[in-house]
Amino acid sequence: MPQYQPPLRDIRFVLHELLGVDQECRAIPAYSEVDAELIDQVIEEGGKFCAEVLYPLNRSGDEEGCRYQGDGVVRTPAGFPEAWQQFAGAGWPSLTVDPVYGGQGLPKCVGIVMDEMMNSANQAWTMYPGLTHGAYECLHAHGTEEQRKLYLPKLTSGQWLGTMCLTEPHCGTDLGLLRARAEPQADGSYRISGTKIFISSGEHDLTENIVHLVLARLPDAPEGTKGVSLFIVPKFVPAADGSLGERNGVKAARIEEKMGIHGNATCVLDFEQASGWLVGEPNRGLPAMFVMMNAARIGVGVQSLGQTVVAYQSALEYACERLQGRSLGGPKAPDKPADPIIVHPDVRRMLLTQKAYAEGGRAFAYWLALMADRSLVHPDAQVRSDAEDMLALLTPVVKAFLTDNGFACTNLALQVYGGHGYIREWGVEQHVRDSRINMIYEGTNTIQSLDLLGRKVLQDNGAKLRKFGALVAAFVEAEGTREDMAEFVNPLAELGQKIEKLSLEIGMKAMQDPEEVGAAAVDYLRLIGHLVMSYFWARMARIALDKAEEPFYRAKLATARFYFARLYPETAALLQSARSGAGTLMALEPESF
Amino acid sequence: MPQYQPPLRDIRFVLHELLGVDQECRAIPAYSEVDAELIDQVIEEGGKFCAEVLYPLNRSGDEEGCRYQGDGVVRTPAGFPEAWQQFAGAGWPSLTVDPVYGGQGLPKCVGIVMDEMMNSANQAWTMYPGLTHGAYECLHAHGTEEQRKLYLPKLTSGQWLGTMCLTEPHCGTDLGLLRARAEPQADGSYRISGTKIFISSGEHDLTENIVHLVLARLPDAPEGTKGVSLFIVPKFVPAADGSLGERNGVKAARIEEKMGIHGNATCVLDFEQASGWLVGEPNRGLPAMFVMMNAARIGVGVQSLGQTVVAYQSALEYACERLQGRSLGGPKAPDKPADPIIVHPDVRRMLLTQKAYAEGGRAFAYWLALMADRSLVHPDAQVRSDAEDMLALLTPVVKAFLTDNGFACTNLALQVYGGHGYIREWGVEQHVRDSRINMIYEGTNTIQSLDLLGRKVLQDNGAKLRKFGALVAAFVEAEGTREDMAEFVNPLAELGQKIEKLSLEIGMKAMQDPEEVGAAAVDYLRLIGHLVMSYFWARMARIALDKAEEPFYRAKLATARFYFARLYPETAALLQSARSGAGTLMALEPESF
Repeated sequence: MPQYQPPLRDIRFVLHELLGVDQECRAIPAYSEVDAELIDQVIEEGGKFCAEVLYPLNRSGDEEGCRYQGDGVVRTPAGFPEAWQQFAGAGWPSLTVDPVYGGQGLPKCVGIVMDEMMNSANQAWTMYPGLTHGAYECLHAHGTEEQRKLYLPKLTSGQWLGTMCLTEPHCGTDLGLLRARAEPQADGSYRISGTKIFISSGEHDLTENIVHLVLARLPDAPEGTKGVSLFIVPKFVPAADGSLGERNGVKAARIEEKMGIHGNATCVLDFEQASGWLVGEPNRGLPAMFVMMNAARIGVGVQSLGQTVVAYQSALEYACERLQGRSLGGPKAPDKPADPIIVHPDVRRMLLTQKAYAEGGRAFAYWLALMADRSLVHPDAQVRSDAEDMLALLTPVVKAFLTDNGFACTNLALQVYGGHGYIREWGVEQHVRDSRINMIYEGTNTIQSLDLLGRKVLQDNGAKLRKFGALVAAFVEAEGTREDMAEFVNPLAELGQKIEKLSLEIGMKAMQDPEEVGAAAVDYLRLIGHLVMSYFWARMARIALDKAEEPFYRAKLATARFYFARLYPETAALLQSARSGAGTLMALEPESF
Repeated sequence: MPQYQPPLRDIRFVLHELLGVDQECRAIPAYSEVDAELIDQVIEEGGKFCAEVLYPLNRSGDEEGCRYQGDGVVRTPAGFPEAWQQFAGAGWPSLTVDPVYGGQGLPKCVGIVMDEMMNSANQAWTMYPGLTHGAYECLHAHGTEEQRKLYLPKLTSGQWLGTMCLTEPHCGTDLGLLRARAEPQADGSYRISGTKIFISSGEHDLTENIVHLVLARLPDAPEGTKGVSLFIVPKFVPAADGSLGERNGVKAARIEEKMGIHGNATCVLDFEQASGWLVGEPNRGLPAMFVMMNAARIGVGVQSLGQTVVAYQSALEYACERLQGRSLGGPKAPDKPADPIIVHPDVRRMLLTQKAYAEGGRAFAYWLALMADRSLVHPDAQVRSDAEDMLALLTPVVKAFLTDNGFACTNLALQVYGGHGYIREWGVEQHVRDSRINMIYEGTNTIQSLDLLGRKVLQDNGAKLRKFGALVAAFVEAEGTREDMAEFVNPLAELGQKIEKLSLEIGMKAMQDPEEVGAAAVDYLRLIGHLVMSYFWARMARIALDKAEEPFYRAKLATARFYFARLYPETAALLQSARSGAGTLMALEPESF
């Protein structure tokens, strides 16, 4: 049966050899005490927890699922609450939290490693703390001093967990249609009423209290998205000392039956005159919520990174063990009745696709977490601002590109298993079902692409894109003279130029017809994704070239070559398709479809 | 809630306007009484059965699944046996069967319409009769007169159903490893022993008897695939008059828990000294079984065609009803709180992808069924032989290309639903799960691609491919002078030339290194798939151009344009990737992955 092995060697390669996180930390006073040794200790310990505690609960959690026991009570699968106690007891919820609120103050580029491993081991379980971190960030940024003091230490210690309550039955993407109401009370609190759906971890038995962050409308609010406010609605109303008071008027009406992530309770929550407290300014709920949302979007990309990694490990193990047929080039295991299927070129293509997207995606995601660290706490204002731009530009890309790839890769893992992959027993089909949601929640991948092309690229006339382009250009300039780098640098440089030209073209067309943005956006996002992949694979190849006598680095080089030979060519199709315009999409009347 | 509407207008378009089935039938004596009116009656009646009887059992069948009740007994979901009684009672199992054995003798190009609609309505249910047809064909071609007389009328009437028993725990793709044994008995029968897995419809409560066609080895059989024989092993041994005799030694040990097709019983079958009768020659079981297999492969392509169609209908309905956001080009439904999401270009891209692959796939599959008819019963030997070549060449393509597209399309349908698509309630995620198996069974899509490139193209030096190329060339020649056809004819001609060149290239490389075939095969198959799509979309556009004042034909034209603008560009990537060679795939040692 498959096992999850934390890929520590690959992780250290990205953190230390590619990103130089140690050195980055030395440049940031808040992280001056973080060094490579500490980081390696943390990820090793974290990896153990993921492999030994979370992974064994993954398939059982899927089989058992969450159960709605009536009257708002939800039971998570066997072992889930105990794993949470162990996780919180070991201090993991506080890993990257501000020391002011009891945290360990490690950078996000270390926290993301734990996120990847947790999602490899058990995505459904990891979703319980997953959104808590967003709730923490949101209160940290927008809460009053009193709110922060009351809630943050409890979220940090893992005593309480948090949720995000946005979606309603009639509104998901379009939050302007939101109907939940908030009535002001004499004591400064509000009464919140309405129904929220698709609330991940909305009710459960992991913690004594659950802190809901809820979007609702004040009585005098303007229509649309500018009339939405954010409220904190705890399941139990806490006293000032954090002790639990009365049960609040929020209750799970049911949990959804879903394609996957069965171990996470996706709730319909009824709010009936629930006590809530305003977070931030009235009618400014959406911008406040977007603090959570952006962190959550990177988090979703990392969910798929984790799923890609674990599915790949599983497929690789199977491909090395399953004996079937002979190599076309002559028997490779003549002493056995057949060769292991990893001898076949197409099985290798499927495995290498997973490997290239896993390792390239890891480089991308960890680097973006480093940009988040820089943007928040780097002492140099210009570095902070540049990092913020990279983060804004590439957050939709890490979300959509990694989740599309993750679904493709978990499917390839299933395909490597053949018929056995379709059987639940082996667990690989669960990775397909679990990772499927990632293309949808926290903004569908279409929404991500519109955010990228419409807002992040066209609205600032490509300024942020040029900043990333400058990184690429600097690398091309520096390495372009090395002959052995030409196979990596040339396609990277070429793609950069083509994207620059395409961006201008779409910008021109969009001025005539706004539908042109929507028509090109999804292809455009994948092109940017490949530009990022090309950049990081070229950088990783550069490191590996100098150490190619070691198998680890030879494998990195081989994977880089595979990426450019087999995955990069998708850009040829994307460029044509992105350029084909809105005409063929908009021609038909709805009734002629 | 979604409903299935048999797409009769589109089906008639393909049968009558594109393929001229009526005229084809007039040229074939065996079908001389088949005309358009009869065909339309049959498909209308069949469509009703699918929509009214099978579709309502689709989701309930998925929820309930099959149950193993111990001691070899399997219960199918509620309503399944009754639906079978109704189906058999109406004579549907005999639709395309030889009148000699009680059939109605309709051509396969009409039977395939029923197959499509049944698979749209309920793939899991349709799998019960699905393989029976293969068993019928196999016995029809290779059985003795006695076997045919005993079994075929029962299979035709629907009193009995059939299975194919190939796979064993340690062997799926590589049937040379097969271990099941057959010991000859004094009375001319055999005792069959061994374990078979993944047997679709291996045990159930639809019929009084189940006829297993089983691969096993005779005591003196040579090793490998040349020592495999085919046996008929009925669940109850029939007397010469067809009445049921003793319970045979074949028993379901359990049923598999799977990702989807929960309504079909996927069985582990234990054969313990079961009575069996040889079909065809000793040690020639594989060629005999391949009669079934080839028919089954087209059938699997049609399963995904059916899934694509029903998922598209579901997504289209949702896209027209779900109000969310406003069109970037200004409100389209100003009287409503938001526009239906079908106004958005990317929602249209997702819908049109499904529409183009559904309608193009239908043209392809129905045409291939017509080739099967021609190959079997056309009076002209040259026509028969040409049709047989087309069938041999394109059977792996219809299987792999349609099932890959089908999975992509059901996923796009899910994506159109957003979060609601991930919830079981709407049914669209079931289409994703059900259609996933189609890429695997009856030979994985990698196996299909090796069959196409290795056997069907390279082994006969491209002769079959040139026959299809001649069809394309004739069309290009005939229509190339029409200016309004240029947008369709030019890319078709261009792709044909590029594939010709690529085929030569790969052939040359393969002479040096056999791994080059495996390295290029999957991309190559998709290229051929696009050549076929381009050909049929160009032909459909040609018909539509002359009637473009009618909305139905305008929609066909718009969909053809969408295909060439948005889906055809994939060929640019495939050409590069197919050409990239085996080197990057074979570089790594297994332990370095």
